Amino acid sequence: MTTVFARHCASRTALEEIGSKWGILALLALGEGAYRFNALRRRVDGVSERMLSQTLQTLERDGLVTREVHSTIPPRVEYSLTGLGEKVADSLRGLADLLEGSVAEMSAARERYDARGD
Amino acid sequence: MTTVFARHCASRTALEEIGSKWGILALLALGEGAYRFNALRRRVDGVSERMLSQTLQTLERDGLVTREVHSTIPPRVEYSLTGLGEKVADSLRGLADLLEGSVAEMSAARERYDARGD
Repeated sequence: MTTVFARHCASRTALEEIGSKWGILALLALGEGAYRFNALRRRVDGVSERMLSQTLQTLERDGLVTREVHSTIPPRVEYSLTGLGEKVADSLRGLADLLEGSVAEMSAARERYDARGD
Repeated sequence: MTTVFARHCASRTALEEIGSKWGILALLALGEGAYRFNALRRRVDGVSERMLSQTLQTLERDGLVTREVHSTIPPRVEYSLTGLGEKVADSLRGLADLLEGSVAEMSAARERYDARGD
């Protein structure tokens, strides 16, 4: 039985890889559809070429993302989600929707916390 | 309209804080019920005292976690989730269940990837 709580469990490693900032954002973007590298980089605001490339390799290795090379001239390389990747992206989309809808509540909480000054 | 994709949006900051390894694991643990600091530290295998303390402060400031001091001798300090924290933890539990159930699939994907050697 694997559990995300245990230091050496495979599901915890996966959680760390997916839970990285760029992992989450790349999966969310690919949840919208297939992307070419540069378009994906524009969608994930602020990511460097190197970080996005590393992130996609990790996600491809984990079986969440597929990299497809179309033999056109010049070759077209597209990234998309696998079946498992879709499920993970759906789950992350739920989290992102929740956070996007809770910004005011969280911002009010931060103001209260900072005003306490303890 | 806030979006996790935009670099300076509040929901992206929240996603980064919650999506941090210890943020996810602390929220998942507190989803099981209230914890005292040391018990929580044992549950979240591998976290240092300092990292857990910082993580809890961030989550408290974001309005996801409540810190309650009971005036016993010695004082008992308990951490639990707020209403918003419960919602976020539920969402993360869905993700963790998915990953815990996909360990074999992900491990097979990694072996295929590494065998390609490209």
